[in-house]
Amino acid sequence: MAGPNLRVLMKRHPDGMVRVDDFTLEHAAMPEPGAGQVLVRNLVLSLDPYMRPRMDPLPSYAPPLAPGELMPGGAVGEVIDSRDDALPNGTLVAAPLGWQSFGLATKATVRVLDPALGPPSAALGVLGMPGVTAHYGLTQIGRPRAGETVVVSAASGAVGGVVGQIARIRGARAVGIAGGERKCRYVVEELGFDACVDYRAADFAERLAAATPAGVDVLFENVGGPVMDAVLGRINDFARIALCGNISDYNRSEPYGLKGMRALLMHRVAMQAFIIADQRAYWAEALPELSSWLAAGRLRYREDVAEGLEHAPEAFIRMLTGANFGKQLVRVAA
Amino acid sequence: MAGPNLRVLMKRHPDGMVRVDDFTLEHAAMPEPGAGQVLVRNLVLSLDPYMRPRMDPLPSYAPPLAPGELMPGGAVGEVIDSRDDALPNGTLVAAPLGWQSFGLATKATVRVLDPALGPPSAALGVLGMPGVTAHYGLTQIGRPRAGETVVVSAASGAVGGVVGQIARIRGARAVGIAGGERKCRYVVEELGFDACVDYRAADFAERLAAATPAGVDVLFENVGGPVMDAVLGRINDFARIALCGNISDYNRSEPYGLKGMRALLMHRVAMQAFIIADQRAYWAEALPELSSWLAAGRLRYREDVAEGLEHAPEAFIRMLTGANFGKQLVRVAA
Repeated sequence: MAGPNLRVLMKRHPDGMVRVDDFTLEHAAMPEPGAGQVLVRNLVLSLDPYMRPRMDPLPSYAPPLAPGELMPGGAVGEVIDSRDDALPNGTLVAAPLGWQSFGLATKATVRVLDPALGPPSAALGVLGMPGVTAHYGLTQIGRPRAGETVVVSAASGAVGGVVGQIARIRGARAVGIAGGERKCRYVVEELGFDACVDYRAADFAERLAAATPAGVDVLFENVGGPVMDAVLGRINDFARIALCGNISDYNRSEPYGLKGMRALLMHRVAMQAFIIADQRAYWAEALPELSSWLAAGRLRYREDVAEGLEHAPEAFIRMLTGANFGKQLVRVAA
Repeated sequence: MAGPNLRVLMKRHPDGMVRVDDFTLEHAAMPEPGAGQVLVRNLVLSLDPYMRPRMDPLPSYAPPLAPGELMPGGAVGEVIDSRDDALPNGTLVAAPLGWQSFGLATKATVRVLDPALGPPSAALGVLGMPGVTAHYGLTQIGRPRAGETVVVSAASGAVGGVVGQIARIRGARAVGIAGGERKCRYVVEELGFDACVDYRAADFAERLAAATPAGVDVLFENVGGPVMDAVLGRINDFARIALCGNISDYNRSEPYGLKGMRALLMHRVAMQAFIIADQRAYWAEALPELSSWLAAGRLRYREDVAEGLEHAPEAFIRMLTGANFGKQLVRVAA
């Protein structure tokens, strides 16, 4: 059956590094909206690191995906068949519709987008989950004071880039960690971080020390692994760690063993793991501020757009290995 | 020179496991109190795990000890030569006088003991640093609600025993982890924990699971290492970890690599490291409550007393390897 709704399913649980043949494509029938539902034509799909642990046969933030299930994800799309007067055809929405061309949503599951606030795809980045994640983790957990040093890993990514820019707005020193000189240049020259350290450099530890002469007061952790251990070697007394992600482990069969417990203990560090899905009320607090910063040119970002849903698996793998550059999106339809 | 003041010095930084010949004894002259000082004859010395990281040539809570320096530690003693009218001869005090027979103190560095509150040695245990540490870490960081499950490692020790008893007083389920069936029996039968799991048992993980049927809401961590990883395998969403010690690493040349980062992340765990030395004001809050519980028979404890300061190194090593049973003390003088 070759229906019009292209869907990307998880074929099987990945074994270590996720591979293209862990996914399968299907052409399904057009979903039929019921009363109170709307049919959404997806325009852009967001690819995010959290999707990888969802693919493991282990509890993550949510029950594990079962083989044959639709890959989850946030998307921006247009209402094309409405059964809810509050969401007329043509409404632009963000919704967790997953890796597919068309999906069903309701008033409760969509966020109606205001095109005046930014381009639609921004609702999947700086004005969406990644932006709100950055805002919450930095300001509610990291709580940098002016003059303190904030380190953020995956600094050229959708979350990390916003973290450092807010840190600067708050008067802190923003130090990014990213993979490669090109990303590091972008983080400093385009995003305005005070410094960025290439974790692939042979002398990474020395460079990190040079970039954090007064140590590290706040760590916004997206990556984990040996890079996190290196930052713990620079951690200050009473530092705060916002534990947001652990992407370096997501494709390992055996987890990395974090060696920096002594540093956490001796420096009386507070580490708080979080996911923004727990903080529904926070969106209303963060989005106006993020929007105003964006409008004022104080928040910059970069997108990495893969063309066509059929290429989502490759784009996802590129993102997980750091081969992308900027917020990873997939254009589903023009 | 063979003066009357027996002192135990760190001879050299230990290499991995601390050994008796990492210490040296000296017989020094009697200290001479200056104006405002008092000479204290130590009666009992406290041995505590934090002393081990102080011996490494690395920053810990305080600058590292240098070879030849007096081993630090809290003691209870009697003022025998006072140059401060507020501390007359005969006053019983607790003070950080280190591993020696006699020491100098001032009003600012001593805590005057009220013999009505408990035996003097209790000021080094349940009514001292370990007791206040337990109270702070459990009630201010762990914050167990009634019915929640609290797990504490080194449960038969000076801190752990108090943690579980306060957890019970607060209406939580208290599960201890200790080394050996004898300690576990004591933790349950004498201290009143709901359960205690022997980490040396071959089926430790299964026993831990059986003892925590509803998972773990609060972990009071004294030990670290694979035992901590096992507890992280049982951790609940929004659990709190009071990171108090990491004794399993203190004598290792290479730190253990903690594998449970995924659990911390996925369950949105808050982990706060602390030392009670940062919380000077808290003592006045905790001690009356601890004293009243002790008087009411709601707090029990056990002491393991080594006889003679010259045996402090062996007793210290016994404690670090878990061969002691109860709060480790050294009788310095009768």
